[in-house]
Amino acid sequence: MGSDKAPESEIQGAILACRTLESDIRVRLVGPEGTLAPALKTALRGARLPIEIVHASEWISMEDKAAQAVRSKRDSSMRVGLKMVREGRAAAFLTAGNTGAAMATAKMVLGSLAGVDRPALATILPTMSGQPSLLLDVGANVDSDPENLVQFAVMGHMYAQNVLGISSPRIGLLSIGEEDTKGNSLTRDTFPLLKALPNLNFIGNVEGRDLFNNRVDVAVCDGFVGNVALKSIEGAAKLFSTLLRESLKSTVTSQVGALLSRRAFSDFKKRLDYSEYGGAPLLGVRGVCIVGHGSSNAKAIMNGIRVAAEFAHAEVNAGIEAALRPQA
Amino acid sequence: MGSDKAPESEIQGAILACRTLESDIRVRLVGPEGTLAPALKTALRGARLPIEIVHASEWISMEDKAAQAVRSKRDSSMRVGLKMVREGRAAAFLTAGNTGAAMATAKMVLGSLAGVDRPALATILPTMSGQPSLLLDVGANVDSDPENLVQFAVMGHMYAQNVLGISSPRIGLLSIGEEDTKGNSLTRDTFPLLKALPNLNFIGNVEGRDLFNNRVDVAVCDGFVGNVALKSIEGAAKLFSTLLRESLKSTVTSQVGALLSRRAFSDFKKRLDYSEYGGAPLLGVRGVCIVGHGSSNAKAIMNGIRVAAEFAHAEVNAGIEAALRPQA
Repeated sequence: MGSDKAPESEIQGAILACRTLESDIRVRLVGPEGTLAPALKTALRGARLPIEIVHASEWISMEDKAAQAVRSKRDSSMRVGLKMVREGRAAAFLTAGNTGAAMATAKMVLGSLAGVDRPALATILPTMSGQPSLLLDVGANVDSDPENLVQFAVMGHMYAQNVLGISSPRIGLLSIGEEDTKGNSLTRDTFPLLKALPNLNFIGNVEGRDLFNNRVDVAVCDGFVGNVALKSIEGAAKLFSTLLRESLKSTVTSQVGALLSRRAFSDFKKRLDYSEYGGAPLLGVRGVCIVGHGSSNAKAIMNGIRVAAEFAHAEVNAGIEAALRPQA
Repeated sequence: MGSDKAPESEIQGAILACRTLESDIRVRLVGPEGTLAPALKTALRGARLPIEIVHASEWISMEDKAAQAVRSKRDSSMRVGLKMVREGRAAAFLTAGNTGAAMATAKMVLGSLAGVDRPALATILPTMSGQPSLLLDVGANVDSDPENLVQFAVMGHMYAQNVLGISSPRIGLLSIGEEDTKGNSLTRDTFPLLKALPNLNFIGNVEGRDLFNNRVDVAVCDGFVGNVALKSIEGAAKLFSTLLRESLKSTVTSQVGALLSRRAFSDFKKRLDYSEYGGAPLLGVRGVCIVGHGSSNAKAIMNGIRVAAEFAHAEVNAGIEAALRPQA
C-alpha cells in the first residue's frame, strides 16, 4: 500500500517478478483485502501465479508522521508485513511507502542484530562506470558516535560484498578533504577506528564527488550528513532533468531532431535510473527490509523484490553479526 | 595566478570587465611581473585599459596544503592582493585559486568583522526559477555551534538582500525534515535562536532538495555538512553531464539531429552555468573576498569582478556589523 500509485505498482511489480525472476519467488501482498483482491484478480487476467494477499486493515501514508503512525496504526500493512518476517513466514519485506515509518516499524518489530547499536539506511548511487556505490547512513540516525560509524562500515562492507558482488569493497569515510586529519570531530575520531579494523579495505577520507567517480564502493557518514547529501543530490537531479527537458522542448523543433534527442535522453535516463537498483536496504535489523522510492513503478517493484531475495539468500546478516562479535 | 589556466583567464577576464562593466572598474593583476607583464601586453594589443600589475614573487597552487602555504609563502599573490584590501588600496579581492588557502589567508590578513566569530564561505546555486539560492557555510568551518549558525544566517541575509537584490530573503535551516523538531542536536539548538531573531524572515527547517526548488533563498548549515552537500552536488552534476554527452554521442548520428541537440544542450548548460554567478563570497571578513572556480574562464572572471564590485558598493559588511551589534 506504500507507493504513490499503490496498489497498482505493487501488484504489477509482483506479477512481473513472478514471471521474470527465478522460479522460487513467492509474493504476499499486504493490505486491505477488499481493495487488493479485486485489483489483483483484474491484473492477473486468469493467470495462476504464486501471489497471495495478507489482510491488513490500515496503511501508513506519505503524509503520516512516522513516530505517530507507528504508535497509532496497530494493524498497518507495514507492521503486518514486518511481523511475517519476524515470525519466519516471509524472507524479506519491501515497501515503497513512508521511509521514516518503515524504518521505525522495522526497528520496533524486527529489532537489531547482535552487535548493532543502530540500524542504518543505505542508498545506492549511480556512478561513471555503471558499478553503483553505497552511501550510509542516509536517514535512520542523527548524532552518531564513532562506534556507530564503524558498524555502518561493517554493514556496508557485507552488503557490497554479498549483494553487490564486490569482492573487496573500498570503504571510505565521507569527509571534507582527503588528508587523514581533515573533517569534523566525529570523522577525526572515527578515522583511527576504521583504520584499525581487520578485514576491511579502508581507503581513508573521501569527498562528496567520490560517490560518483568510482573512487569508493561504500561511503559512511552519520545519518544527518547522509540525508542532507542524498536530498541535495536528488534536488540537483530534478533541476537537471527539468531544465534539460525544457531546453529540448524549446530548441528542438524538427521531427528528426526531436526523435533523435528523445532517444539520447531516454538512454541517458536509463543509465541514471534508480529503479534498476530496487531500493535502499535497511541494514542492521534482524531480517530483510528494503525501502523503495515512493514513485516506484512496476519495474522498480520487481527489482525491489529481486534485491530483497538476493539480500535474504546472501546471509548478509549472519556476516554482520560475525564481524561485529567481540573477539574472545 | 589562481585559475587552472592562469594567468590567461585572469588577464582576459580583466580586459572583458574593463570593456563591458560600468566605467569605474579598475583591475590590479597580482603576481610575478615577469610573467604577467608580457602576457598582458600581448592580450591588450595596444589597447589602453585601467589594468595594472602588482608584483608578487610567489603564488599558491591547487596542490599546496592551505595551512602550510599560508605560513611558508610570505609573498604569495593571494597575500599581496589581500593586503591591498586591508590597506584600502583595493576595494575587493578575487581569486580562482586554492579555496582553502584563500579562506585562510583572508581570515589572517583581513580579520573578522565585529560580532563575527567565524567567517563563512557562501556558494550560489542555480534553481528552477533562475533566481539563485545561497548556501553557507560550505567549507570554512567544522564543528560550528548555534551562535555561529545564527551569524551565518545574518550574513547570508545581508548578502542576499544587498547583492542578490532579494528584498526579504527567506532564511532556512538545512536539516533532514521540515518539522521544527527534526534534525541533529546542532540544528535543534539553533532553531529557537533563529526564530527569535528580529528582522529575519526565518522559514524554519529546509531540506537538501529545497536548495533548487525556490522554497528558500538562504540556507544555513555548518561547514562540514555544507561542504559535503556541495561536493556531492558537483559530483552528481559531473556524472549527469558526462552521461548525457555520451548518450548524445552514441545515439545522435544524423547531422541535423546533432546540431539541434547541441543547441538544446548548450541552452541547458547556460542555464546551469556557474560562471554567471562569479564565485563564492567569503562572508564575515573585514573586506571583500570572492573565490571563483579553478576552472574559471574569462567570462567567469569578469562576472567575479562584477560581483566583487557590487559586494564592495553594497556595504554588506556594515550591515552585518550593525545587525550583530549587541543591543544596548
